[in-house]
Amino acid sequence: MNIIEPLQIAIEELSKLPTIGRKTAQRLALYILKSDKDSVANLIKAVTDLKEKIKFCSVCFNLSVDDTCEVCKSPKRDKSIICVVEEASDVIAIESTNEYKGLYHVLGGVLSPLSGKGVESLKIAELVLRVNEPDVKEIVLALNPDTEGETTSLYLTRRLKPLNKRITRLPTGLPLGGDLEFTDHATVGRAILNRIEL
Amino acid sequence: MNIIEPLQIAIEELSKLPTIGRKTAQRLALYILKSDKDSVANLIKAVTDLKEKIKFCSVCFNLSVDDTCEVCKSPKRDKSIICVVEEASDVIAIESTNEYKGLYHVLGGVLSPLSGKGVESLKIAELVLRVNEPDVKEIVLALNPDTEGETTSLYLTRRLKPLNKRITRLPTGLPLGGDLEFTDHATVGRAILNRIEL
Repeated sequence: MNIIEPLQIAIEELSKLPTIGRKTAQRLALYILKSDKDSVANLIKAVTDLKEKIKFCSVCFNLSVDDTCEVCKSPKRDKSIICVVEEASDVIAIESTNEYKGLYHVLGGVLSPLSGKGVESLKIAELVLRVNEPDVKEIVLALNPDTEGETTSLYLTRRLKPLNKRITRLPTGLPLGGDLEFTDHATVGRAILNRIEL
Repeated sequence: MNIIEPLQIAIEELSKLPTIGRKTAQRLALYILKSDKDSVANLIKAVTDLKEKIKFCSVCFNLSVDDTCEVCKSPKRDKSIICVVEEASDVIAIESTNEYKGLYHVLGGVLSPLSGKGVESLKIAELVLRVNEPDVKEIVLALNPDTEGETTSLYLTRRLKPLNKRITRLPTGLPLGGDLEFTDHATVGRAILNRIEL
């Protein structure tokens, strides 16, 4: 006997999700099977709504329920700063710090020639248009500090430099509460090179 | 800015699933959001079908698309042996070994007075009826080797003994390919007590 078809299909679909292996997918499927109808209906509705109710902000490409996202709409945000991030999840990460009050621009990825991601597949032209506005004074490049993120930052710096706005980026260094001994070599090495005068 | 509502709700619903924490739920929700419509539709259909197409076998309470499951229907299975398991997932585990050719009986849990699971909440009366059939010669108790599983096995043994059928259970011992040093004390202790004459 094999696993019956509807269960088999559910396991296959669930194991396509990130971090979910076959064993976990089977566990999830059996859990769903044992859950009451209402819980399953809620789960299905939540996933459906995710796809149907959320779109991308027409200004900054952040997630939004309306045409323009909450950040772009808010009168409290500082419209002179644009923080450039790779993905909408980075906006969530920065917002949760409560330290940033400017606007965002979600690129939708990074330049990655090997996986065929070029300039035209990212929201770079849209960024250049926004930066050109006279209100904008500063662009914060907050891409991930990996090879592709740094390459993209370099490209954006060159592209935005002629517009004569202040361009900043997030510093790399030791994570707060971290431990020199257990921090990777590359991070420690870069921190020594970029040591700060006191 | 908080996380927008449909995303927030999806994260909450997904994090109700076993093994899925908030961080993973957010990752899954954002992944689903970025997936194309067809993939999401397939996922939703798979989960819906799981609940709508699968029922419990009227004989052994295994998962089934029909009134009677594949195992009970198969003419190839040995109808003289019934293997008693806690959950349908245990049937999948035993079937995947290809070593068992008899029938099953899924109890739907184990006796657990603390969480209010008594004899009437399990399919025990149904088991007794089945064991009473003259065709049945052996009952294999394949419950999990934990306190509740062992208590339930003990209860079932007492209950089935008067029916004068052969009652067996799965042996406990060292897992194949395991390592004495890294096997838990309880398993090694039990293995020493139950050592086998050569």
